[in-house]
Amino acid sequence: MKKYIAIDIGGTQIRVAVFPENSVDFEKQKKIPTQGDGKTPIDRLLGLLEEIWPSEGDVQSISMAAPGYLDPEAGIVITAPNIPGWKNLPVSSLIQERFTVPVYLGNDANLAALGEWKFGAGKGHSDLLYLTISTGIGGGIISGNRLITGTRGMAGELGHVVAIPDGPMCACGKKGHIEAVSSGTAIARYVKEKIAEGIPSIFPPGSTPSSKEIASAAAHGDELSIQAFRQAGYYLGQAIADWIHILNPSILILGGGVSRSGDLLMKPLIASLKEHIITEEYIKDLKIEFAALGDDAGLLGALALSLEK
Amino acid sequence: MKKYIAIDIGGTQIRVAVFPENSVDFEKQKKIPTQGDGKTPIDRLLGLLEEIWPSEGDVQSISMAAPGYLDPEAGIVITAPNIPGWKNLPVSSLIQERFTVPVYLGNDANLAALGEWKFGAGKGHSDLLYLTISTGIGGGIISGNRLITGTRGMAGELGHVVAIPDGPMCACGKKGHIEAVSSGTAIARYVKEKIAEGIPSIFPPGSTPSSKEIASAAAHGDELSIQAFRQAGYYLGQAIADWIHILNPSILILGGGVSRSGDLLMKPLIASLKEHIITEEYIKDLKIEFAALGDDAGLLGALALSLEK
Repeated sequence: MKKYIAIDIGGTQIRVAVFPENSVDFEKQKKIPTQGDGKTPIDRLLGLLEEIWPSEGDVQSISMAAPGYLDPEAGIVITAPNIPGWKNLPVSSLIQERFTVPVYLGNDANLAALGEWKFGAGKGHSDLLYLTISTGIGGGIISGNRLITGTRGMAGELGHVVAIPDGPMCACGKKGHIEAVSSGTAIARYVKEKIAEGIPSIFPPGSTPSSKEIASAAAHGDELSIQAFRQAGYYLGQAIADWIHILNPSILILGGGVSRSGDLLMKPLIASLKEHIITEEYIKDLKIEFAALGDDAGLLGALALSLEK
Repeated sequence: MKKYIAIDIGGTQIRVAVFPENSVDFEKQKKIPTQGDGKTPIDRLLGLLEEIWPSEGDVQSISMAAPGYLDPEAGIVITAPNIPGWKNLPVSSLIQERFTVPVYLGNDANLAALGEWKFGAGKGHSDLLYLTISTGIGGGIISGNRLITGTRGMAGELGHVVAIPDGPMCACGKKGHIEAVSSGTAIARYVKEKIAEGIPSIFPPGSTPSSKEIASAAAHGDELSIQAFRQAGYYLGQAIADWIHILNPSILILGGGVSRSGDLLMKPLIASLKEHIITEEYIKDLKIEFAALGDDAGLLGALALSLEK
């Protein structure tokens, strides 16, 4: 029986799973922390793959969702800031040497888009825009039923487009990116700064609430917290309108914790999208859905990559 | 012998040409004004096609580059503001009924990108970003060796992304688009406004120089004119960095009259691009070239469309 192994690696956890053919339910999975035992992350990963290797069946391929910049064609992680030592690492060939099956590599947000398109909220859509809004903002693009990777696999960095020239500093070191304006981190920073400026709110002076706490305060009517989400939603709507003009998708899929803030975020987002779109033609048939794959987005995206190859 | 007919229609001129197989040199072409004789543009186009129809050879297909929003799959021009009566016009079927060969339709800027990719400055590049900077700003995207059209053919509207929130009014009615900041029209408006504000320059008070005259004044050291191009280039660099993060192209092709302003535009553009890019990896192998097809971009783009079908 044909089997597929999928890997989802992040800064804190490595997860691997074995999928039987024609199934999105893994038959076995294992998770370990990315670091520990004095071993490198790649050694820990190779060990985990050996542990999970199925005793029966033919493994067709191993596919892997990884964070950071990577060159999927070459199978190289160019830089993954959260994983120590992963800089110009030929991860595909390191795995392939050991297990002698084809290895496929993709950026985690790009593969989440591919997974949503193949198995999740985007099934049947040829043109899909996937946006994940959590501590950061990431994305993936399907156009004409294909994942847009760009010449070196670095496409889909939707978090790093300018929303406000000379605006707040982004984690990447540039200014005013949508990630620096509308991510969970940005919402928390905005409220913290306003509290420090003495703007009245539910929160005591000097406090640094999380975006979740801010969402909860907003639900209780705290005006500063409502304003923080209103601003985040406004600039998301502006950025999404830009992307729709560039890519003309039929579906927008929102993932990540911050996207599940309900009307607090979605009302200003939708109003701003409508305000910024140049013609109704772009949005009259546009579906807006929440991501369906949840925590399995990375694994299922990696599986989708194997199946598309 | 196989032949292909290509059409390039705009607000002022209709141009048609017959190409023999395996050739980018037309054997015959005809041009007429888009309006006149009390006939509709579509009747004038149909008449022109009859005139140019080759007496020998098999016409394989007719392909057409048209401005505005259109649905290439359905062969419908949704709206072409410069062509009277072209609103939800099923142009492909109107042509097909008369000439009984396949008819293909594409947006003019998108097809210029396709033409540059197949015959021009972008040959051999799988991922290409084409930008035309003239009175307006338009674009086209090739990704993975395919033209990105989006779900209804409206992708590639690169002129209509926000460069400055609440910035200058764009021709489309929205604010702060890159077209409203960096097009020839925008450069001329900026200088006109600064002259009206009393900023000293080569130009007499109350004058309204064109972007060409401003380029010439800048070449003579006029500081206001230099500043106008510096600002246009800066925001173009910012926008291009955004698009590179989204699409990761291997080549950027610049077309349109304003792109031929030399260092005046290109120096601030390149400096800004480098300032805004999140990692050198995106641009270290990026080619920046000027469009090679000139006035034939529409016709050759339409021809490329026929050949890709």
